[in-house]
Amino acid sequence: MTIRKLFEPNSVAVVGASRDPEKLGHIVVKNLKEADFEGKIYPVNPETDEILDLKCYPSLKEAPKKTQLAVIVLPAQKVPSILKQCDENNVKNAIIVSGGFSEYDEEGEELEEEVLEIAKEMNIRILGPNCQGINNTSNGLCATWPLITKEGPLSIVTQSGTIAAALSNWAEEENIGVAKTAILGNKADIDEADLIDYLADDEETGVIGIYLDGVEKGRKFLEAARKAAEEKPVVVLKGGRSERGSKAVKSHTQSYAGKYEIFRSACRQEGLILVESVTEFYNVCKGIAALPQPEDSNTVIVTSSGGSGILAIDAAENLDVDLIDLSDRAVEKLDEVLPRECILSNPLDLTGSATAGMFDDSIKILARYKDINNLVVIVGDPIPGIADVIKERFDRLTIIPVMLGMGKEGLKEKLIDAGIPVFSDPALAMKVADAL
Amino acid sequence: MTIRKLFEPNSVAVVGASRDPEKLGHIVVKNLKEADFEGKIYPVNPETDEILDLKCYPSLKEAPKKTQLAVIVLPAQKVPSILKQCDENNVKNAIIVSGGFSEYDEEGEELEEEVLEIAKEMNIRILGPNCQGINNTSNGLCATWPLITKEGPLSIVTQSGTIAAALSNWAEEENIGVAKTAILGNKADIDEADLIDYLADDEETGVIGIYLDGVEKGRKFLEAARKAAEEKPVVVLKGGRSERGSKAVKSHTQSYAGKYEIFRSACRQEGLILVESVTEFYNVCKGIAALPQPEDSNTVIVTSSGGSGILAIDAAENLDVDLIDLSDRAVEKLDEVLPRECILSNPLDLTGSATAGMFDDSIKILARYKDINNLVVIVGDPIPGIADVIKERFDRLTIIPVMLGMGKEGLKEKLIDAGIPVFSDPALAMKVADAL
Repeated sequence: MTIRKLFEPNSVAVVGASRDPEKLGHIVVKNLKEADFEGKIYPVNPETDEILDLKCYPSLKEAPKKTQLAVIVLPAQKVPSILKQCDENNVKNAIIVSGGFSEYDEEGEELEEEVLEIAKEMNIRILGPNCQGINNTSNGLCATWPLITKEGPLSIVTQSGTIAAALSNWAEEENIGVAKTAILGNKADIDEADLIDYLADDEETGVIGIYLDGVEKGRKFLEAARKAAEEKPVVVLKGGRSERGSKAVKSHTQSYAGKYEIFRSACRQEGLILVESVTEFYNVCKGIAALPQPEDSNTVIVTSSGGSGILAIDAAENLDVDLIDLSDRAVEKLDEVLPRECILSNPLDLTGSATAGMFDDSIKILARYKDINNLVVIVGDPIPGIADVIKERFDRLTIIPVMLGMGKEGLKEKLIDAGIPVFSDPALAMKVADAL
Repeated sequence: MTIRKLFEPNSVAVVGASRDPEKLGHIVVKNLKEADFEGKIYPVNPETDEILDLKCYPSLKEAPKKTQLAVIVLPAQKVPSILKQCDENNVKNAIIVSGGFSEYDEEGEELEEEVLEIAKEMNIRILGPNCQGINNTSNGLCATWPLITKEGPLSIVTQSGTIAAALSNWAEEENIGVAKTAILGNKADIDEADLIDYLADDEETGVIGIYLDGVEKGRKFLEAARKAAEEKPVVVLKGGRSERGSKAVKSHTQSYAGKYEIFRSACRQEGLILVESVTEFYNVCKGIAALPQPEDSNTVIVTSSGGSGILAIDAAENLDVDLIDLSDRAVEKLDEVLPRECILSNPLDLTGSATAGMFDDSIKILARYKDINNLVVIVGDPIPGIADVIKERFDRLTIIPVMLGMGKEGLKEKLIDAGIPVFSDPALAMKVADAL
């Protein structure tokens, strides 16, 4: 059964809603409200009449019929009976935030099995249990925390609520924005493959970022990821790559990490992009989300900082980035407009005396050569006017801007405001060029 | 001859000072003034009487006698004659910011030789040419750009002005602060070894961060770095590690990158800390600058985010961090105070329901065990009160705080305001634990 209504319900009940601002049952209602959820919100709590100015229902049964999604934040023991109420109300999608299931103890494991059986019998799809919910910025369904409302092309599927929160916070701060987020939890029913299938077809999703520590159904995951990767870039961060890490995976989500070498080569074969840290994960997702996709990987570095250019080149060594030589014709053209101190090769070093005009001239000339696909533009000092140069050329070329050593001039902010991603490490920019 | 007066002059002349706010000859005077330089500032320019309310001298000869440092920002051709004026004024230290020397062309190379000969004859020590100057925050000698005034333990020696600017900007923003910065340029006279010697003895310097792309006098460098490393941590980022990168080094600073494998093993043998990107460089320097040094490398991870804990462990795999097992006694004690869902191992996973009290209890208990030296404390959600817990325990233990998925609660800022470094990637935190 489709999970479309999980992300696109016309109404959502929060079972275990609370008036206490510190409780998750309060935070979820508040985030739905503050994200301006387009549908109806039904807080469910037998002990109060209203929460955050919303009419509160004593039970799911008594909530308006045909509620399309239930978010359950009650203790584990109560979940089976709530699922039965879902059925009575005809709710077909449930997010079980509650912990205390298979991740907890044997009793919890049995409870999880019971929940799954009820759900199957009643044809209810479940995300979780022990999960941090979902977010759909396009309709304001922030059935998770923190509150993220900035729309954008990045969708995140993860086994870690924190990693989802980190990425979406950064993406909001840097004006990239988020399409959908889903935090898997124990994966009793819905797993990464189901979500990837949905996101592959989702028009708002431009790039899918996945954090997994364990993959039980490897073949199903790879099949879904392969199909998705045909539609849009899929970036994967895997936890439990080391022997000791894989042991910790078992404790974290009761899943089996497997051998990373096998996982890695399988992912590469299916065209997925692999990253190895949270920093890489965010930067690569951000780059793909916000940069125009180049036709090929031929890359030229244009820099005002010789040292940063060298570090970019060093980083390219183990990547599939082609640092092409400039053609004689291009060198000739550059030589006509640039001062003598510039080093006309790749990296094209405009030196510390670079001006916005020199960057502009260089980018204009390099843009004429069809065999150049990516420009990594490293701005080493605050250069007045540089933001306008990059903005002006951005839509017509894949420019990956790196800004280092900026002060309080607001040049970086100017680009971010225009929806242009800015990087602060030449090595990360090369990783982005590689991923594109 | 000592280079102490380069950093600690009682007076500085800026030869080529300018009234034009875009010129370096203006910016240097302005930065010296705004950094509140403790000594006298003498702008030198024959065409004006005052610059930024400072009396301007027509030539260095006419400036007050016994000026202790000259910063030269005039075209290359004029530098030899200025050096002769230095001698007449008895100036024994000069920073030659001007470019157009050996990095430029053969003529420039000859000019550089001439400058060096004059300097040797007249016993003048030179930083540069083609360099971005120096900064000493303790006396306000910001004879460079950008303007950085926040004092702290980090000193930077670099062949790249941009990398110095990036690190010192970040260190100022994050309340770490800078002691000294020196940007080498062409190294005609003063080289990295001279500066490292000076910084090894400098009381304000707690950690030395070095970026080099070429090392001509390898033995001299290693000898200086070894001695310095006996006094304080020395962190090294080397550009030109790859074959192609080493070619770019030649163009950048006319220096020879050498084989990285040889450089790396020599550095390791001398106790230097090696990093491989700007992000690692800054994070490791920041960690060492602001964290108390542990006695050993036994590390325990305390986390509210299972996934982040796993990523931290994965990152430790290729490092010398000892992720020790918790003793039975410690597990017993933790079991007494922590809720049942917590996973009592290393990482100690307090789960998503972690509170500041749970972190506090855990840190208190772990602090009792002498065989635990480092705590990597990963806060995966905004947890009210967590900043106070870390602040309270910080001075008595080496706590490396990682904060991910923070919103606008200001928890991170609270720590930064207290001079506590905060990291945003579990893998980088492990790199810091390793470096400590």
